[in-house]
Amino acid sequence: MPAQPLVVGVDFGTLSGRAVVVRVRDGAELGTAVWEYRHGVIDRRLPATGESLPPGWALQVPEDYVDVLAHAVPGAIRAAGADPADVVGIGTDFTACTMVPVTADGTPLCELPEFAGNPHAYVKLWRHHAAQPQADRINDLARSRGESWLARYGGMISSEWEFAKALQIFEEAPEVYAAMRHWVELADWIVWRLTGRYVRNACTAGYKGILQDGRYPSAEFLGALAPGFESFVDTKLAHPLGALGSPAGTLTAGAAALTGLRPGIAVAVGNVDAHVTAPAAQAVEPGQMVAIMGTSTCHVMNGAALREVPGMCGVVDGGIVAGLWGYEAGQSGVGDIFGWFAEHGVPPAYHDRARVRGISVHELLTELAARQRIGEHGLLALDWHSGNRSVLVDHELSGVIAGQTLATRAEDTYRALLEATAFGTRMIIDAFTGAGLPVTELIIAGGLLKNPLLMQIYADVTGLPLSVIGSAQGPALGSAIHAAVAAGCYADVGTAAKAMGSVHRAAYRPVPANVEAYQELYADYVALHDHFGRGGDDVLHRLAARRKGRP
Amino acid sequence: MPAQPLVVGVDFGTLSGRAVVVRVRDGAELGTAVWEYRHGVIDRRLPATGESLPPGWALQVPEDYVDVLAHAVPGAIRAAGADPADVVGIGTDFTACTMVPVTADGTPLCELPEFAGNPHAYVKLWRHHAAQPQADRINDLARSRGESWLARYGGMISSEWEFAKALQIFEEAPEVYAAMRHWVELADWIVWRLTGRYVRNACTAGYKGILQDGRYPSAEFLGALAPGFESFVDTKLAHPLGALGSPAGTLTAGAAALTGLRPGIAVAVGNVDAHVTAPAAQAVEPGQMVAIMGTSTCHVMNGAALREVPGMCGVVDGGIVAGLWGYEAGQSGVGDIFGWFAEHGVPPAYHDRARVRGISVHELLTELAARQRIGEHGLLALDWHSGNRSVLVDHELSGVIAGQTLATRAEDTYRALLEATAFGTRMIIDAFTGAGLPVTELIIAGGLLKNPLLMQIYADVTGLPLSVIGSAQGPALGSAIHAAVAAGCYADVGTAAKAMGSVHRAAYRPVPANVEAYQELYADYVALHDHFGRGGDDVLHRLAARRKGRP
Repeated sequence: MPAQPLVVGVDFGTLSGRAVVVRVRDGAELGTAVWEYRHGVIDRRLPATGESLPPGWALQVPEDYVDVLAHAVPGAIRAAGADPADVVGIGTDFTACTMVPVTADGTPLCELPEFAGNPHAYVKLWRHHAAQPQADRINDLARSRGESWLARYGGMISSEWEFAKALQIFEEAPEVYAAMRHWVELADWIVWRLTGRYVRNACTAGYKGILQDGRYPSAEFLGALAPGFESFVDTKLAHPLGALGSPAGTLTAGAAALTGLRPGIAVAVGNVDAHVTAPAAQAVEPGQMVAIMGTSTCHVMNGAALREVPGMCGVVDGGIVAGLWGYEAGQSGVGDIFGWFAEHGVPPAYHDRARVRGISVHELLTELAARQRIGEHGLLALDWHSGNRSVLVDHELSGVIAGQTLATRAEDTYRALLEATAFGTRMIIDAFTGAGLPVTELIIAGGLLKNPLLMQIYADVTGLPLSVIGSAQGPALGSAIHAAVAAGCYADVGTAAKAMGSVHRAAYRPVPANVEAYQELYADYVALHDHFGRGGDDVLHRLAARRKGRP
Repeated sequence: MPAQPLVVGVDFGTLSGRAVVVRVRDGAELGTAVWEYRHGVIDRRLPATGESLPPGWALQVPEDYVDVLAHAVPGAIRAAGADPADVVGIGTDFTACTMVPVTADGTPLCELPEFAGNPHAYVKLWRHHAAQPQADRINDLARSRGESWLARYGGMISSEWEFAKALQIFEEAPEVYAAMRHWVELADWIVWRLTGRYVRNACTAGYKGILQDGRYPSAEFLGALAPGFESFVDTKLAHPLGALGSPAGTLTAGAAALTGLRPGIAVAVGNVDAHVTAPAAQAVEPGQMVAIMGTSTCHVMNGAALREVPGMCGVVDGGIVAGLWGYEAGQSGVGDIFGWFAEHGVPPAYHDRARVRGISVHELLTELAARQRIGEHGLLALDWHSGNRSVLVDHELSGVIAGQTLATRAEDTYRALLEATAFGTRMIIDAFTGAGLPVTELIIAGGLLKNPLLMQIYADVTGLPLSVIGSAQGPALGSAIHAAVAAGCYADVGTAAKAMGSVHRAAYRPVPANVEAYQELYADYVALHDHFGRGGDDVLHRLAARRKGRP
């Protein structure tokens, strides 16, 4: 072991990968580098053939991820001024559920000449939404058969997940389905690329792969879904399972040559960007809920016991750290909604003013909104512009805003939208608490933590002390923490998180008068939420049907 | 009688007065002239003293109206190339309820040196809203005493009306109240100025002055409102009553010198801009509803019988034409809402595009919205941004929009707002029909008739043939029609309207498929309307209270 051991964490995002070199002793981030995917997201035409893709498709090319290993990892080492010999382990995290069909040795089918022109042979990115019909059938059948696993996912499997995407291939590209030996999460494929071994991580296996209590959905269920699909688990999903933080293997000579690291160092089991952030924010104890706030928000929290939380995205044994039940929930639209409003609902004068001052429209609106007394704008919004994941699990819902007058200005609406997302988080917290999983601290990660007004609103709406992650590259730091555990530098992820994670504890404290004011507004939000979301008036569904031209 | 008799109609608006010279035979508009009020609306500081006015105040200066007689009338005669000797009568209409305290000879108190510095001595414009506390007390007391007249006003007297404004003077400026011999509508004051006689018109006496079945509110009621106020009707409201279309008197020598017209010609009884528009649009038969659509919409319709229509603004015997019951209803915000959205909710690209094309943002949004299939935007709005007059009579309500997604664009919202106001008009029509006063034709006057998409939406939403007034200066033409009747050229207003009024009958016809599509959306509107407006969820009132900082 070197005197000053280092680890490398690599975060594979939607458009780029980021590597960071971290000191094992204290988590200091010594250097970082980013590498953009050459092909980005393929959602219009397949590069190999120029074939145009139907709406909802989103593909990627695996070699782009390998480029990250080849460029971002050595780049981060250089930026850190580090000696590769000091690096004792590498950990990775990925978007999920992002899947690729591969041969027995892990070669993506799209890299075989005979499949280069077949869109189904490529990586299906998390936001490939073209398997919605398959997801609908999975849900309908699971409900009608009373499948016990459905409750572990808040009652609904997403079209983004592994089974829906696999069923789409089975039905639309039988030749690809037949040629595929493994249906692999990229989180595991990249580890396979580093170690030469296919080890499935417990996180995506549970959250995206419907692995519950050691079992995938039954052959009976799969066969009822589509004749011939009953053998899917046996023939396409064979793998060993790896606990998070454990080593998947060691770096191969080839991967060492690619990355500039030493062969034989530890490679951690794969992970997911949101979940790996929890240890980076020192938030792995039951009751510590991490909200990764960006275009959408992902909430992850550990629990000592298994509970059914209405509307959660999933609960997985060891899904965040080994030995605890990992819970996940989500809000479909958060930063996306603010961005939509700033782009499509703000008049020219604000844009001009922001430009003159050299700030963004978001910053200007935030500044103006921050001057308001709670309730002054007279508005109340429902944050469902992108549907509702938790707790209603209903993507046909849409946004509502009430209270507009001729005196309503852009900053009023902006603030109402910020508040609406805070109320949405409070609904999730209440659902966890109501299910016997009290939330005692809210820890914020992700890009939106830069907005102090938003942070204070979240503290005041939830009544919880708000901590914020100390690192600007939470997922990569989280992966580095897993690398350190896999390398044996720490006994477990919790211990490593204490030493290497970074958090500003209680950076925002709820102000009692604000908590009281928001308590009233939240009661009104709940009434509106239940009226439009729980059957009081089903008008949002009718509006969605009309929007789509359905009778 | 000259060979080619002419009449002059003068319309006194909020910021200017307009005179039009009209041929009696066929209503041809031969010439027009506009004169802007020098003082405009005084709502910040009293010019005489610089004293600042509290919020809600809106005053005017009577000499500005006299300037209209002195400039616009001769201007219109010149523009028409007319011989003043051919003019046989003059008629006028005014904003209402616009009131001024005067001496026995009609001199406004503000023109007396001792009162020039007293804001209460000036004209209180229709939109002076500072008498709301007084209006609230009038309504509370009337309800608690079960005053029979309250139902004639849809259950609520407005702060804009005569009694609330008088009570404000009584309580806040007793010296002005003591010195005032008459409390006069400007509609009548201008006629007084022309004829030397004070004749009160049946329209404002009924709609704004609570004159019902020949009686004002009782001395007991007024005394219970404020000790000392019981003598108000006897001491401040003495007057003869004049039917619409009848002569109030003849033009005095002084007024003839002022206007350039001949002394002795007929001067019609005063009238109100909205009501006088009905004959100008040939819409004086029961079942013909005229909607004067501008920043707000005023609906007027005659009925053969007295009915209580929920939420109407008023029903007055002879309030539109003598011999019929005149009904009035209203939408507080219409063009105002479109204007608010265009100014405060539309992003820069639209403004740029409109500028490049040399059209208004309204025209651009209308053009884009017109391309949509009904329901395509997925939105549903409540048009209560300025409160709701008919049918809910609740000014603490506010706007709601449901169905927003990240794909919602400005033209979507714009169209939803157009539709919302059409649904609001349909609610009013349904209330009339439900009260036994079926509406068979909708006739549109006012500035918004220029928008063909809006017109087609109104036809499709109401399922009624939509006629539009043929004149661009409906009120002034209506006043000219009343002048012709007062001069004896026609037997009554109905006959004169047939000869002189102007309408494009059924300019827009409902399209059956659209009617059906809107029928569904309207059902959703009604549900939303009743939920937020009739007690399902009182959240809009709570939001309004918070906006105003009330506990």
